Amino acid sequence: MSIVVVGSVAYDTVETGRGKVTDALGGSASFFAVAARFFTPVSIVAVVGSDFKPEDRQRLSDRGIDLRALEQQEGKTFRWHGRYHEDLNKRDTLSLDLNVFDGFMPNLLPDQRRCDYLFLANIAPTLQEQVLSQVMSPKLVAGDTMDHWIVDTHEDLLKLLPRIDILTVNDEEARLLSGEYNLVKAARVILAMGVRSVLIKRGEYGVIQFSKEGMFAVPAYPLEEVVDPTGAGDTFAGGMMGFLARDGRVTESSLRTAVVYGSVMASFVVERFSLERLFDLTWEEIDNRYRAFIDLIDSHHSRWITQ
Amino acid sequence: MSIVVVGSVAYDTVETGRGKVTDALGGSASFFAVAARFFTPVSIVAVVGSDFKPEDRQRLSDRGIDLRALEQQEGKTFRWHGRYHEDLNKRDTLSLDLNVFDGFMPNLLPDQRRCDYLFLANIAPTLQEQVLSQVMSPKLVAGDTMDHWIVDTHEDLLKLLPRIDILTVNDEEARLLSGEYNLVKAARVILAMGVRSVLIKRGEYGVIQFSKEGMFAVPAYPLEEVVDPTGAGDTFAGGMMGFLARDGRVTESSLRTAVVYGSVMASFVVERFSLERLFDLTWEEIDNRYRAFIDLIDSHHSRWITQ
Repeated sequence: MSIVVVGSVAYDTVETGRGKVTDALGGSASFFAVAARFFTPVSIVAVVGSDFKPEDRQRLSDRGIDLRALEQQEGKTFRWHGRYHEDLNKRDTLSLDLNVFDGFMPNLLPDQRRCDYLFLANIAPTLQEQVLSQVMSPKLVAGDTMDHWIVDTHEDLLKLLPRIDILTVNDEEARLLSGEYNLVKAARVILAMGVRSVLIKRGEYGVIQFSKEGMFAVPAYPLEEVVDPTGAGDTFAGGMMGFLARDGRVTESSLRTAVVYGSVMASFVVERFSLERLFDLTWEEIDNRYRAFIDLIDSHHSRWITQ
Repeated sequence: MSIVVVGSVAYDTVETGRGKVTDALGGSASFFAVAARFFTPVSIVAVVGSDFKPEDRQRLSDRGIDLRALEQQEGKTFRWHGRYHEDLNKRDTLSLDLNVFDGFMPNLLPDQRRCDYLFLANIAPTLQEQVLSQVMSPKLVAGDTMDHWIVDTHEDLLKLLPRIDILTVNDEEARLLSGEYNLVKAARVILAMGVRSVLIKRGEYGVIQFSKEGMFAVPAYPLEEVVDPTGAGDTFAGGMMGFLARDGRVTESSLRTAVVYGSVMASFVVERFSLERLFDLTWEEIDNRYRAFIDLIDSHHSRWITQ
């Protein structure tokens, strides 16, 4: 089954201890879509400016990503400039320009309105709502957000949450949204806001998923070299939603497998700048790392003792 | 099979956001032994001062811990005073007094010299070496260390490492010992120093174990309230070694189960100050949390896909 994602398609300037890229293809919807496309068809709903390079559109469409709802408007493409610390869990945003996203009115095509899987990537809650309202009866809606929307558009976000099945946030966002420092308490508060599941992304420490049914936690795959963490969260979401849409079931068991596939996809994207690693990734590599990941977390728990 | 542990038996003054305790029973050997004793017999090799309270000795011996090699000397018991940040992964040591440990010469009893399992808790590498040299043919030796020994007694530690099977350190200690920031690289350097396995403790983020055979990572059990993280690492080691000694096998599979039992024991000790939670813990509680822990990390990985 196919997925619709609304989010940014952007040009990122990124500085890490490993180097720098300027105006590299990025944005939440791009990372999500390229990751999800390994599993299932995906359409991007977004806007780019008149400076968006035809070769970047070509790279996305060559992956088989549906770009019919990727509008091009007069003006500049969304731009982000960030710099990471040696501790790659920390970064500073040096500049952020919404550009053509300011005032963007998304408009889904008739077939996109019938989609079963919808990902509301990190953009304004009102934009997320506009897309959600156009989709007739989605089977699963996942959404991401960030500190800016939690603080400045708090009411809009709270109205949206009961319509979201899986919310993805990082530790700090979970704390900010809930007002609780402890993550177990924070997750309980967020579940009470109406989401079915909250998935806390912890960068190099992995992911914890909370739902009424229980908790599931995985570490991140330990890598020898991380070049650029940008897009890891959206790539995670792409792998997770991609698996769920392909599998067609939304059960506790399929959600757990989806979290593992999300972690596997995220472990690749950080190996190089921008989308570079995802663009040359093969299914064989995904499959091999999936097996390595399962080996990493498999507790061989048949061996427990009784007393 | 029984375990011998050499380490501190101490009085700790601890301040956290949840309160403060003064001169509470603590020390690496105490936490280790009380945790390990749930699985198997254990002897403590250590020294206390003339101020050590008979009721504290009684509490340990009531648990069935062998205290024949817990010497009492003229002077004061080892004391540590620490204060934790709101982020409980961070703490400041306000004072540390070795007291009777300064100049301590450990002396094992004949039956202790024949032990199969030995844990060298966090004390001077020369003391660790003196105990190790008295044990005739241990089946498994695990050891802990800290920044102070890594920096100030580097050569003593390097001489000891090839005689240690499992080294437990935290992220920062792994970086300091190896000179590598990235933990995968750090672990490879430490394995090359001669240990068979290095186990990196990451507090609330869990544990990663590296060996030539591979990697195993588990998250920490998510808790709603952490009162006092003191002793979590030693309690982890006690659960891990306790399981291994009880199981009698040292295989990749038993090591993984041991890491889970270590994580389970550590998840209890932090729920209250000092050893309070371990002293009132029941096997039924351990068993229930073991099951909850397995549920937390179980990926249901029978569901993977092929393409």
